[in-house]
Amino acid sequence: MSSNPKPEPATVKLAPKAVVGRVCLYLRQLELLHGQGEITISSAELGAPLSIKNAQVRKDLAYFGQFGHPGIGYQIDDLIGALRHVLGVDHEWPLALVGFGNLGRALLGYHGFRSRGFKIVAIFDADPAKIGRKLDRLVIEPLESLLQVVAARQITLALLCVPAEVAQSVADRLVAAGIVGIFNFAPTPIHLPEHVSLIGVDLGAQLENLAYKVEKSRELAPGASQASSY
Amino acid sequence: MSSNPKPEPATVKLAPKAVVGRVCLYLRQLELLHGQGEITISSAELGAPLSIKNAQVRKDLAYFGQFGHPGIGYQIDDLIGALRHVLGVDHEWPLALVGFGNLGRALLGYHGFRSRGFKIVAIFDADPAKIGRKLDRLVIEPLESLLQVVAARQITLALLCVPAEVAQSVADRLVAAGIVGIFNFAPTPIHLPEHVSLIGVDLGAQLENLAYKVEKSRELAPGASQASSY
Repeated sequence: MSSNPKPEPATVKLAPKAVVGRVCLYLRQLELLHGQGEITISSAELGAPLSIKNAQVRKDLAYFGQFGHPGIGYQIDDLIGALRHVLGVDHEWPLALVGFGNLGRALLGYHGFRSRGFKIVAIFDADPAKIGRKLDRLVIEPLESLLQVVAARQITLALLCVPAEVAQSVADRLVAAGIVGIFNFAPTPIHLPEHVSLIGVDLGAQLENLAYKVEKSRELAPGASQASSY
Repeated sequence: MSSNPKPEPATVKLAPKAVVGRVCLYLRQLELLHGQGEITISSAELGAPLSIKNAQVRKDLAYFGQFGHPGIGYQIDDLIGALRHVLGVDHEWPLALVGFGNLGRALLGYHGFRSRGFKIVAIFDADPAKIGRKLDRLVIEPLESLLQVVAARQITLALLCVPAEVAQSVADRLVAAGIVGIFNFAPTPIHLPEHVSLIGVDLGAQLENLAYKVEKSRELAPGASQASSY
């Protein structure tokens, strides 16, 4: 393994996925506490319900700036504002939902998106029987309208919920239409140009991961298969 | 649940999540190639379409055994069988689907589960308006039937698709009923006893991760926002 030295990137280096994932959890937790009227919090209190150690909390947050106050901890509302800005969720993200099968329908109704500023503003499908159908304030549109709709509604992100066989070709069309971030729900890997960000969610593969953990924990602790209350 | 003690915990250590995730991808790729009539494959050929280096492929597979033959590579059908066994997907997993909102409905129809031996054999919901509704070969059942149904149908895994507010309490009931692996789709972290395996899928948090990547790639390369074909 050779390591070719690269020039140090500026101040905007990308934090590791695991750090961003935990920061999303902190934000969720902070919003919950803010709703309950809490004002300040320590790193230990923030990490405890998430089973994350306080040193880890401090290290993660330090990626993005200096937020804490010695002896006080973090101001919850300040930290919420700062983390929303860091994550890019202090403004609305218009989304395109591409593929309106069962999963697409579920994502349209998923509250976890809407509550965080992710708003589905266009729905596309290739099926002539679905095109033109009205859903609430949206109409299912044909893929041929992609370029025009993405530009007109300033859409940057897409939820890709099409069958595996067409995932790559539809992703290519999304990129050509100007989409710069794709959340891939199709159970297949897709390849994108470097300037396009990708998150893949292969639910089947994740379920395999769960099955593997269950198998292993049986092997590791054969006597411990009885449910214990806690 | 039989408890035959196998006292060799050294050989059965849990592989890291990232390794298992990649092994799931290899399995998918191998199944695809097997369907196309391929017989053998090298680690480089296996990794290439997944953008994974051959050294990584070999290292990942070595976690689970010695599969390759020098000069030949891997026998595809042997490797498929071995990996299915390793992942615990060489047998069927009966699943409980808990919470039948939009997401639950989508998961019921998700082909990525059924094609890998994950079979939904029970559906639960707390809503009296939904209980008793027939879906294909299943009937939506009340949470009160959990204990009995889980035992009768030998269910070990559950897909938790309930609202965030009740996720923990429903998870507790699943554990009490004997469930040993939970796939949490509720947009909130849940806490489980140590013997229960957990995979969390917070789609909103993952979308935030995507948004963050898009924001950062804009900052890192402000001129590169135009779509390029490839």
